[in-house]
Amino acid sequence: MDNKRPLILISNDDGYNYNGIRSLIKVARTLGDVFVVAPAVHQSGMSSAITFVNPVRTIKVTEEPGFTVYLATGTPADCVKLALSQLMADRMPDVVLAGINHGFNSGLNTLYSGTMACVFEGILHGVPSVAFSFGDYSSDADTSVCEEVVHHVTKRVLERGLPKDVCLNVNIPHVDGTFKGMKVTTGDMGRWVNEWEHRVDPTGRDYYWLTGEFELADKGEGLTDYYWLERGYVTVTPTHVDQTDFASMAAISDLLL
Amino acid sequence: MDNKRPLILISNDDGYNYNGIRSLIKVARTLGDVFVVAPAVHQSGMSSAITFVNPVRTIKVTEEPGFTVYLATGTPADCVKLALSQLMADRMPDVVLAGINHGFNSGLNTLYSGTMACVFEGILHGVPSVAFSFGDYSSDADTSVCEEVVHHVTKRVLERGLPKDVCLNVNIPHVDGTFKGMKVTTGDMGRWVNEWEHRVDPTGRDYYWLTGEFELADKGEGLTDYYWLERGYVTVTPTHVDQTDFASMAAISDLLL
Repeated sequence: MDNKRPLILISNDDGYNYNGIRSLIKVARTLGDVFVVAPAVHQSGMSSAITFVNPVRTIKVTEEPGFTVYLATGTPADCVKLALSQLMADRMPDVVLAGINHGFNSGLNTLYSGTMACVFEGILHGVPSVAFSFGDYSSDADTSVCEEVVHHVTKRVLERGLPKDVCLNVNIPHVDGTFKGMKVTTGDMGRWVNEWEHRVDPTGRDYYWLTGEFELADKGEGLTDYYWLERGYVTVTPTHVDQTDFASMAAISDLLL
Repeated sequence: MDNKRPLILISNDDGYNYNGIRSLIKVARTLGDVFVVAPAVHQSGMSSAITFVNPVRTIKVTEEPGFTVYLATGTPADCVKLALSQLMADRMPDVVLAGINHGFNSGLNTLYSGTMACVFEGILHGVPSVAFSFGDYSSDADTSVCEEVVHHVTKRVLERGLPKDVCLNVNIPHVDGTFKGMKVTTGDMGRWVNEWEHRVDPTGRDYYWLTGEFELADKGEGLTDYYWLERGYVTVTPTHVDQTDFASMAAISDLLL
């Protein structure tokens, strides 16, 4: 790195008017120059959805030395793709940060997460990437308690990088007092049950709200993010994009060929 | 299995008025009873997005012995979740089939695919699940050429099941004449380049269309889906949900703790 300050790209899925992204920006500005591309509209649960049936537009809402903010009309994945391929074409960032999400992205829920989509795009473009999520789901959650963790992880990643094709999924519990510590964990691949609430509208027609309870896969082994979050630890799950199941390739050949 | 015919759940992301899902239904009805829950509106590129800001509604468009069709206002993941948790609550299906998608879901593109979201929901609910995609992207693609492959794979999966937590991603090339054969492959984790086309509207404002070219990771090793699709083979990639990068957990502990 030359004498330039690090360049940090930030996005999220909640949108720009949330404490989570404001905390992330606050910490990032102490570590480098900050470039934000956030969704113009709330995009929770959008997974890695991309927009190609319609075009995407951007609005530049802030431009000052070391700090630029765009809002984009697309999904979280669109925001990071657009940042890395168009808006930041002059200089690639040194790190992509996503969040701080209002609510955990632990275990299976990474599958549905727009926050994780941001960091998947980061590593697909060759940039070390870290997602942060906080265990308070309210829209006015006080995310300032996460700032020390964000600072620690981001500083380390800026200094030392990450293994190729691996991003970090950092979950921060909502605790009274201080965190117990930090653990590197797997994601709990449990399952959602009672996923829908069936209701009837005033005209007698059915409709369904997505809801549910998460049944943990972890039965106390102490390997997963959920296990340690419940015990007051910050968890870090190394995560990659490739979903090929290498282990079953021979069995599938036997089955089909 | 008792004397009942197999029960087959079908969904897709293109919607119900596509040849792909019609071919899938045609083959499935020769193998069992068929229950369809398809998106009411085209949902390509929706990945595993879920709907919880608004409720989801359904419309039953067909009900005859052994064949039921619902359209749902949600995403592909919503359709399969709703089918397995509410609409089919009396009897779980023996297999979930998704597609036939108009266009490949090979390599990295599984990340963005609504078709793959359907089969991820299938395995998360404990049901063997297979996605089919065809290398003709036109909305009126003739998917009848895929039917023999669909029949072969579905019959085998009904007879013998699949390994726990593994679904199949079947891609079928658009070839003149007959397929060269079938290969069990990995997904090519290449990258998209030139992802956006920057345009200016008649009032002078910028907008961006998502587009791009896919750069293969495979440099001729012959392991990936793209490699064999280009050579006229049907490819089958065993796929799972968990994206934890187990291999880098020790390195990340060294980095952060």
